[in-house]
Amino acid sequence: MKTLFQYNWQVRDDWFSWCETVPEGDLLKSRGAGVGGILKTLFHIVAVEYSWICDITGRPDLDDDFEAHASLERVVSLSRTLHPVVGDFVLNWTDSRHQEKVTVYHPRTGQQETFREGEILDHIIAHEIHHIGQLSVWARELGREPVTANLIRRGIYN
Amino acid sequence: MKTLFQYNWQVRDDWFSWCETVPEGDLLKSRGAGVGGILKTLFHIVAVEYSWICDITGRPDLDDDFEAHASLERVVSLSRTLHPVVGDFVLNWTDSRHQEKVTVYHPRTGQQETFREGEILDHIIAHEIHHIGQLSVWARELGREPVTANLIRRGIYN
Repeated sequence: MKTLFQYNWQVRDDWFSWCETVPEGDLLKSRGAGVGGILKTLFHIVAVEYSWICDITGRPDLDDDFEAHASLERVVSLSRTLHPVVGDFVLNWTDSRHQEKVTVYHPRTGQQETFREGEILDHIIAHEIHHIGQLSVWARELGREPVTANLIRRGIYN
Repeated sequence: MKTLFQYNWQVRDDWFSWCETVPEGDLLKSRGAGVGGILKTLFHIVAVEYSWICDITGRPDLDDDFEAHASLERVVSLSRTLHPVVGDFVLNWTDSRHQEKVTVYHPRTGQQETFREGEILDHIIAHEIHHIGQLSVWARELGREPVTANLIRRGIYN
């Protein structure tokens, strides 16, 4: 499980580097799938990961939306600022917490939902990989090679 | 880890059902990213998953290419035929095998590479989720709602 998080963090950083080579207009351009654009997807990945960790740990969540971070520099900065909290939680997590219950309150609907910690962590992993798959299609639309999605040969395992 | 495989198998089946509602021409249409099309992606996911399990277990791999399976019915049939082998391996796998070495021979280059079983299983998981992310963009291009990528609320955890 931790390997898949490390994979995601490495791939995300590779996409941030990739973004440096692309005009910001292309990163901000509205696209008709997923959350609607390249940079918005990267912001969404960062915000959703952090939000779930806040749900588990009881931290206050971010109160920001994409408009406050609509530049590559700000999304990268947000990712790096939040990463120590996320990394510390994930890398210290143990399987014994798998079935721990987490109750999430949805302010808009007034409803509560209960999940398991293991389920949430698996969801965060799948969420990021899925959205990165969307970026790979948009990269080709821009005539560019996407970041490799291979987990093997990344040096995560030694 | 097993949950992420179960997630992938459930999402794949949801995409097979989704494909039934789409004209086969759209499924076969060549698209400029990933492996090049919707049905080809689903074939690729099935074939790559099986191929890695063959590498680990020493089974002979499939000797088929997409042209032999270029219909929804044949890709679904291939997935269902191979699934018992894959499912049996994955669901009986234990963490004690994580560091077991697997040597893979590449006939084209004559080279060998050595991986760990845990690394290969994580790679298979990420590989499928990544490609499914691409399908979600192509679904929107066809004006259709993609299959949900949510892992939570799928009933995988009880």
